[in-house]
Amino acid sequence: MRFTDQLTAAARSQHTMLCVGLDPEPARLPSHLPQGAAGIYDFCAAIVDATADLACAFKPQIAYFAAQGAEAQLERLIAHIRQAAPGVPVILDAKRGDIGATAVQYAREAFERYGADAVTVSPFMGQDTVQPYLQYPDKGVFLLCRTSNPGGNDFQAQRLADVPGQPRLFEHLATQAQGAWNSNGQLGLVVGATYPEDVAAVRRCAPSLPLLIPGVGAQGGDAVATVRAAYTGPGSVAINSSRAILYASQGADFAQAARAQALRTRDELNAAVPA
Amino acid sequence: MRFTDQLTAAARSQHTMLCVGLDPEPARLPSHLPQGAAGIYDFCAAIVDATADLACAFKPQIAYFAAQGAEAQLERLIAHIRQAAPGVPVILDAKRGDIGATAVQYAREAFERYGADAVTVSPFMGQDTVQPYLQYPDKGVFLLCRTSNPGGNDFQAQRLADVPGQPRLFEHLATQAQGAWNSNGQLGLVVGATYPEDVAAVRRCAPSLPLLIPGVGAQGGDAVATVRAAYTGPGSVAINSSRAILYASQGADFAQAARAQALRTRDELNAAVPA
Repeated sequence: MRFTDQLTAAARSQHTMLCVGLDPEPARLPSHLPQGAAGIYDFCAAIVDATADLACAFKPQIAYFAAQGAEAQLERLIAHIRQAAPGVPVILDAKRGDIGATAVQYAREAFERYGADAVTVSPFMGQDTVQPYLQYPDKGVFLLCRTSNPGGNDFQAQRLADVPGQPRLFEHLATQAQGAWNSNGQLGLVVGATYPEDVAAVRRCAPSLPLLIPGVGAQGGDAVATVRAAYTGPGSVAINSSRAILYASQGADFAQAARAQALRTRDELNAAVPA
Repeated sequence: MRFTDQLTAAARSQHTMLCVGLDPEPARLPSHLPQGAAGIYDFCAAIVDATADLACAFKPQIAYFAAQGAEAQLERLIAHIRQAAPGVPVILDAKRGDIGATAVQYAREAFERYGADAVTVSPFMGQDTVQPYLQYPDKGVFLLCRTSNPGGNDFQAQRLADVPGQPRLFEHLATQAQGAWNSNGQLGLVVGATYPEDVAAVRRCAPSLPLLIPGVGAQGGDAVATVRAAYTGPGSVAINSSRAILYASQGADFAQAARAQALRTRDELNAAVPA
């Protein structure tokens, strides 16, 4: 099944637009779990079990695994998601970006080694560096577009002097991703929730692309404004929350607390959909 | 020792500006080597042995290892470089780029897990996403600036409407990297050799930063024009060649052929320095 269809099916059948981010920081794991790579796996698997029926996607962030030498645990975790949450797609958050020959290797890493359904990619090096990921027709590719951190303004928000209408870089990118770059309907965009007016601007440029939206929760984005700016139906958005869910409690009840927080977030997001 | 000093010392003592890129493509390895991860290590270690006295830096490209699940081989390879080429710095080519909390993890991956002396980073998400790498004061950080692939024009070459003088994005970035971003003298820039006039433009914006320059050799960049545009003394440039050296022969003589090609490239680069 194509990624966009898979995301839509999961969002519709579970009635959710919540993407659960899996960013296991060793220093923040409950103290009763094993230290190191084993604890990372146990922690993430418990979060998956506790939120499997609430998520339209899971998004493991590869940096947290790579820093600990926990690639094998990431492979196991993705296998566990297949068991615990069949039908819920896995978006590998890797933000890779390199020339074609190297991008071929990164695509192999994401789609063959880890078997992810979609991957996040940086578009900074241009269209030909995105192409290799599109050779996997069932897979999705979310391009970084408008990120929610302070430095997101440094380049992404610059107006381009020589493009008609002088759009901001992220608007120009969104237009390209909706059109010329999206040869096989596989693209989506990463848009931070911190600036709902910018989410709306991206949605104007890219009316039919799925948007992966981090920044709700610990990063402070306004959930209601974000949904109103971006949502056009099931599968149109995957709104990510990581830390607010993962670290809702650091005690033995961490999985129950994560579930309670995920439930609240799912309901808050659903309630924001205009009638 | 600080990275820039280390690069300068290696360039001076070995009289070279050649960076040897380690991009082991399984399909292109000599057929007598073991298949898979073991072959990757044997191949790269032999290349290191054959070029240790010709390189000012080694640059393993992490994608080629990650695609094969060969992280352990990358760790071993870097340990081997320390033995075979003491004093020659290791630049981990990873092109990471993510928000601060995640960048902390990527910095840990590059500098603590792999022990690299420098890492390549994408600046697309802005200054705060580069900051975590600068918490390691002896380490170097090469920001992607002007890449040599066709899509390098898509965003990097766009003129910015609201920056005084309307510089191109890569020029604006180079100016920032030379100035405000470079709080501790750790930054360098990645600039492709395909457009020597753009290398010269970067050098004007960033007169004292080390430039990591891929694109000579298999990618077709003009070595002489590149050196004339960028070189200002030992340690000012690290000119990378990967495929032309690695795959000079695919027979049993691959290491000798790699050495011969590396020698030619080193000499060609040195000969291009204006008298």
